[in-house]
Amino acid sequence: MKFDPIPTHLKVCVVGAGNMGADHIKRLARRIVGAEMTAAIDADLSRAKKAVEGIPSATALADLGQALEREDVDAVLIAAPGPLHKDMLLQVLQRDLPILCEKPMTPDAASSWEVLEAEQKLGLKRIQVGFMRRFDAEYQRLRGLITSGELGDLLMLHCSHRNPGTRREFTNEMLITDSVAHEFDAVRYLTGQEIKNVQVRLGRATRYAQSGQHDPQQVLFETESGVLVDVEIFVNAQFGYQVTTEAVFEKGIVNIGEDRGPYVHTAGRWGGQITPGFVERFRSAYDAEVQSWVDAAKRGEVGGPTAWDGYVTAACCEAGVIAQRSGERVEVSLKSKPGIYGEQLLPGRT
Amino acid sequence: MKFDPIPTHLKVCVVGAGNMGADHIKRLARRIVGAEMTAAIDADLSRAKKAVEGIPSATALADLGQALEREDVDAVLIAAPGPLHKDMLLQVLQRDLPILCEKPMTPDAASSWEVLEAEQKLGLKRIQVGFMRRFDAEYQRLRGLITSGELGDLLMLHCSHRNPGTRREFTNEMLITDSVAHEFDAVRYLTGQEIKNVQVRLGRATRYAQSGQHDPQQVLFETESGVLVDVEIFVNAQFGYQVTTEAVFEKGIVNIGEDRGPYVHTAGRWGGQITPGFVERFRSAYDAEVQSWVDAAKRGEVGGPTAWDGYVTAACCEAGVIAQRSGERVEVSLKSKPGIYGEQLLPGRT
Amino acid sequence: MKFDPIPTHLKVCVVGAGNMGADHIKRLARRIVGAEMTAAIDADLSRAKKAVEGIPSATALADLGQALEREDVDAVLIAAPGPLHKDMLLQVLQRDLPILCEKPMTPDAASSWEVLEAEQKLGLKRIQVGFMRRFDAEYQRLRGLITSGELGDLLMLHCSHRNPGTRREFTNEMLITDSVAHEFDAVRYLTGQEIKNVQVRLGRATRYAQSGQHDPQQVLFETESGVLVDVEIFVNAQFGYQVTTEAVFEKGIVNIGEDRGPYVHTAGRWGGQITPGFVERFRSAYDAEVQSWVDAAKRGEVGGPTAWDGYVTAACCEAGVIAQRSGERVEVSLKSKPGIYGEQLLPGRT
Amino acid sequence: MKFDPIPTHLKVCVVGAGNMGADHIKRLARRIVGAEMTAAIDADLSRAKKAVEGIPSATALADLGQALEREDVDAVLIAAPGPLHKDMLLQVLQRDLPILCEKPMTPDAASSWEVLEAEQKLGLKRIQVGFMRRFDAEYQRLRGLITSGELGDLLMLHCSHRNPGTRREFTNEMLITDSVAHEFDAVRYLTGQEIKNVQVRLGRATRYAQSGQHDPQQVLFETESGVLVDVEIFVNAQFGYQVTTEAVFEKGIVNIGEDRGPYVHTAGRWGGQITPGFVERFRSAYDAEVQSWVDAAKRGEVGGPTAWDGYVTAACCEAGVIAQRSGERVEVSLKSKPGIYGEQLLPGRT
Repeated sequence: MKFDPIPTHLKVCVVGAGNMGADHIKRLARRIVGAEMTAAIDADLSRAKKAVEGIPSATALADLGQALEREDVDAVLIAAPGPLHKDMLLQVLQRDLPILCEKPMTPDAASSWEVLEAEQKLGLKRIQVGFMRRFDAEYQRLRGLITSGELGDLLMLHCSHRNPGTRREFTNEMLITDSVAHEFDAVRYLTGQEIKNVQVRLGRATRYAQSGQHDPQQVLFETESGVLVDVEIFVNAQFGYQVTTEAVFEKGIVNIGEDRGPYVHTAGRWGGQITPGFVERFRSAYDAEVQSWVDAAKRGEVGGPTAWDGYVTAACCEAGVIAQRSGERVEVSLKSKPGIYGEQLLPGRT
Repeated sequence: MKFDPIPTHLKVCVVGAGNMGADHIKRLARRIVGAEMTAAIDADLSRAKKAVEGIPSATALADLGQALEREDVDAVLIAAPGPLHKDMLLQVLQRDLPILCEKPMTPDAASSWEVLEAEQKLGLKRIQVGFMRRFDAEYQRLRGLITSGELGDLLMLHCSHRNPGTRREFTNEMLITDSVAHEFDAVRYLTGQEIKNVQVRLGRATRYAQSGQHDPQQVLFETESGVLVDVEIFVNAQFGYQVTTEAVFEKGIVNIGEDRGPYVHTAGRWGGQITPGFVERFRSAYDAEVQSWVDAAKRGEVGGPTAWDGYVTAACCEAGVIAQRSGERVEVSLKSKPGIYGEQLLPGRT
Repeated sequence: MKFDPIPTHLKVCVVGAGNMGADHIKRLARRIVGAEMTAAIDADLSRAKKAVEGIPSATALADLGQALEREDVDAVLIAAPGPLHKDMLLQVLQRDLPILCEKPMTPDAASSWEVLEAEQKLGLKRIQVGFMRRFDAEYQRLRGLITSGELGDLLMLHCSHRNPGTRREFTNEMLITDSVAHEFDAVRYLTGQEIKNVQVRLGRATRYAQSGQHDPQQVLFETESGVLVDVEIFVNAQFGYQVTTEAVFEKGIVNIGEDRGPYVHTAGRWGGQITPGFVERFRSAYDAEVQSWVDAAKRGEVGGPTAWDGYVTAACCEAGVIAQRSGERVEVSLKSKPGIYGEQLLPGRT
Repeated sequence: MKFDPIPTHLKVCVVGAGNMGADHIKRLARRIVGAEMTAAIDADLSRAKKAVEGIPSATALADLGQALEREDVDAVLIAAPGPLHKDMLLQVLQRDLPILCEKPMTPDAASSWEVLEAEQKLGLKRIQVGFMRRFDAEYQRLRGLITSGELGDLLMLHCSHRNPGTRREFTNEMLITDSVAHEFDAVRYLTGQEIKNVQVRLGRATRYAQSGQHDPQQVLFETESGVLVDVEIFVNAQFGYQVTTEAVFEKGIVNIGEDRGPYVHTAGRWGGQITPGFVERFRSAYDAEVQSWVDAAKRGEVGGPTAWDGYVTAACCEAGVIAQRSGERVEVSLKSKPGIYGEQLLPGRT
């Protein structure tokens, strides 16, 4: 049997072939419709080579510049370490290509703002930021319940974010900038509102934390309309991976993120397994995210959170890190939203 | 058939024949072993009379003094409004009778301390305070898990306390003094530690609250060893009654207070009923509490939380009300624990 | 402090001081209101003595006849082995005393019928049979849902009855007569209908069964109106104790008997504990059963399932044992219901 | 931006543009990697046209013969009515193309056997049958638990299969041939064993069934090693769609198919939504099934249940329909398995 070609595939280059990058490379090659995985870039060329093994359409390269010269690169997915993002983003924006950038967009608000300025010069949105929770079915259903108003107004959100453990280089600040960053964006997505201030409580710490980490922490924040949010961030929770949200409405309570079946009764206990990590928990969300990006890129659009969302999260994380040190409530300060990023999503009760 | 008498029944007088008192009267007459319901007291004599209908052993009276003159009063259960408790407690202590006093013991720390001084003069504990959650099977199991250390140290407690609605005279302070009072005691019971400080967050409020109430609120406190506690108190939650605790340990998470079956699948939904109110939710805990009090009273002992626990909760509530007004963290200050009230329950990790 | 006596206590003698009897003795002494535990009878007198230790009101005896001579015996609870029940029941009926007889009332339909004839001569019901599931809150709620008709007609019942293991002398017939006996009665209680026929399926057996047992088995029966019932009886299920019912209605499904919290997440799993055995699972049902019997006995009535229910269950068990041997469907044949046992409970749709 | 073609897409023609066919057409066009939707065939050409709207690569045709003439047809997915399958299968087998045939492969064992004979002449497997449950994550995990032996041997399977309602032309036989057909295959998949016999119990029927249907029914069967299976088939269950399996092992119980969150507490109830129908319940399973077929087809293989599985299910359904009429246990008789279909999957304990 001979298979002929079909048109309309987005040729994607992935920058960074670490865990996250390698996962995206496999995803683009095997699970995304209408994309072709053409180049993998890593300063460590052997890592790039390993990541594209078995993918005939893909080349391994050591440098983003090289890739941008090629004919077979329509779009770029950035999964390199955060501190390298800004330069890469500016470089790809110059070529006016669609970008999916893993979070954080950049490590701080000032550098994020530079990226926004570069994007504005193009006059349209080119950057999608990798907050994959927006593509999770349960987050979407919760947002639907908030928007519909059927349970009245949303009043509080209780969140927990638990990892079994952390790698060695995971600092105390990263509890905010790497982990709670997701909740900053998720709360903005759910409520359609900006976050006004952040406070961090440090209490009793686990003996299983890496040196330098105070773990767990409780991060408190508040949205424009006064929705109170609390986030338990616990990155050495040992037992497994768990991300939950409890939403308190005027007329009811909604819980998402519970683990599920199969349910096993054995040896005096009943229950189910816990998801081991974020890859397993959010696999379908990652797939949906990348698919949405690919589909939108072909239409010249962005299919998810924008550079503005990347910038705001960076500003929230900055406030969070200051709050972590001071114990005080810290205001989040934002510049005005440039016109190309549109309106807020969900009006509050007026 | 003729039934002969048997000995060893504790003859109990109940002060207050409102909802709570009437419930205790029925409980003592029908469900408690080894007690006899002999007198019900209410300034509104008709209410007392109504409460003892169908209980041949019980008389209705309008005045506590009268009851204390009688031969058939071995012990007193106080279910009158909180502001009346102090005088009643002092009056009964003078007779040296066992007392079960509904919470709050008294409305403030100073008056509670007066009661402690009076009790100390007797040289032994006579007062048990009505924190019934200590008798709830799930709280007891959670405490067992904390004490055993099998999941490592306890690090955080996330609590919610939701009522469908409130009666007209329920003030904003009562969210703390009437409702969160239970969590103050429960956290002390679970951790075996005192509470060091209290903070209150006010955010978006429900439109279904009574005038004057800011509802819901989030109350944050911290124990001696740094266990962080957050309590969502939501007294007009509409949907039903719910009291839950999520305990975060070094090696696991424990949840209590979930509603349960029968599970019904119908009309596109599945699930169970929600307990309508605290009477239904804690019925067995109330039974166990009163039974424990009756059994202990016969041995000349107290079978549950003591006047010291009543005093500490009053002090926490005072700090909570100040915190509610200021938005700041308020320290809880306690006098030294008098010797008759013994040691703390649970040592922390050292 | 001196406690005076109060009247109206039912003085109860318990026959049989094995596990079940000893449990009832403790229950009557400590948890039942309005009863006095006066005599414990066991052919093994030392066992009777051990069972009444710490209960000053109770004497140990070796013989039921002796007990019936005494002034302090108003009522008899029979917890002796089933084959002894018939003679004991006839002996106590001669004295016209209230009886609570553990199930089975007698081992077969013929001997049960003899007991019914003796009771009819008294002209009123004296015997209550120990089917405690009728006093379980979930069974009661399920029956309420059936009676109310709010989910339409009941169509099927799927039941499971799982024990961790069996004692040595538990025969293959006892899977039916000792275990499924409870489902025969529970189905009659839930539906208000008699059982028409029984079939037993034997399939793959566990290697953990006692010699002589084919375990598990599936028992199928049908009620008068055609409700299909299937019961998985599995008496060496290893993992714990579990008794569940799934009711299929025209407009919904209801499940009872699920295990519950506290819910623990640890070591990659989440879930709850399983009840270890029937004593723990049905403790409150046993309490409610004995309390109902005591209360009714004082009024000269029976407070639960009657001798008729005991007889019918014996007849169902007989059919079940035949079905177990033949693999065929066996009809249940019943004599006419004597007038003192009243009407059926729940009419079907007509 | 211009997108160039990439190779290696399987060009698929779909026969039948009804509900099921239209769903597969959309799936192949939008969610399956490495496939191209080229032709949709329906005797009602307007229906075929409607199904390919917005899919530029696809043509609508009225006849399968036409499609098989075309260059752009590499493989055929058959979603036409069951009675038409045999002729279509034989026609496509003549062209030696890969086929995914919706279940039932054919309506009876004899016609299925003809298909097997035709396929054997090709000397390799070309037909995959659409039993999508084999691609459901929970069924796969349950099978893993059975194969691993970690809970001991499998002893029983309790299944329920509930639909909210049926279309007008759904006959009484179709409860077996259209619905229980899935359980026949799923049990074979889970246990790796053939089904020996079938029995059907008819009891009380719902008033909401279509005329001619006796609904619900209980279908009992047994595998080679004696695993007892019971299936409640209830096709007018009103409340929603539900497919569950409870597996009874020597050392534990496993449940799959429970509905899940978000969990909502409101208006006195808590719980979740019920999946409305099989499309929603098994959407990911259908995707995985078709993807597996496409991937295998490119390698010249079959990626799921084979024509043998289609034949065996037809034989089980035949026995089931006879059992439905007689009420008796009916043996399933199978011809010997031809060599190209390989060995059984799971050995029993020996």
